[in-house]
Amino acid sequence: MTLQELRKEIDELDRQLVTLLSRRAETALEAGRLKVATDLPIYEPAREKTIYENVRKANLGPLPDIELIHIFERIVDVMRTLQKNELAPQRNAQAAALGHDAGVQSPETGNRQ
Amino acid sequence: MTLQELRKEIDELDRQLVTLLSRRAETALEAGRLKVATDLPIYEPAREKTIYENVRKANLGPLPDIELIHIFERIVDVMRTLQKNELAPQRNAQAAALGHDAGVQSPETGNRQ
Repeated sequence: MTLQELRKEIDELDRQLVTLLSRRAETALEAGRLKVATDLPIYEPAREKTIYENVRKANLGPLPDIELIHIFERIVDVMRTLQKNELAPQRNAQAAALGHDAGVQSPETGNRQ
Repeated sequence: MTLQELRKEIDELDRQLVTLLSRRAETALEAGRLKVATDLPIYEPAREKTIYENVRKANLGPLPDIELIHIFERIVDVMRTLQKNELAPQRNAQAAALGHDAGVQSPETGNRQ
């Protein structure tokens, strides 16, 4: 393959990555909405560990685990920001209705923002 | 869907992301090897811009462009580290054979490491 063909392939892989990341974001938002709506326990620090363990198990190279985890740390970070921005109004409205403190937490991992 | 089902779906999406990122890494390594082997011009700062432009064009939400770019900045960073580690011996050997300076550059974007 020529360099141009290899770059075309990378661009195509990147478009597929965008599609998967968008679906992951949709699913994380759905999980967050469910937790807020059903008042499920939010704080589950084990969840983030499970995400990275799953990534390590799926990795067959050539990226070392540590580099792949660096990418997923950024993904988890970005998902948290999305959840914070999208779900804060829902949580605040619900907390006000229930007379609770409306501190915003990450619906996926339960970490306080 | 229950929270458990949503998390299963996220874990499955993450495994697909690992597969795509691994393929992207393989392809970036191949591009790097080609450049080193054929002594093609390395410095092409426009390439990184093209990567982010491609990502922006492919994005249909729910992640804002800026957050998606944050993820891809990390991806490009990690690919550069991989290339540096994998291709430096090839470049150094070739430079020594040709009597060139063996400074390591990023084969994908041409940035000096």
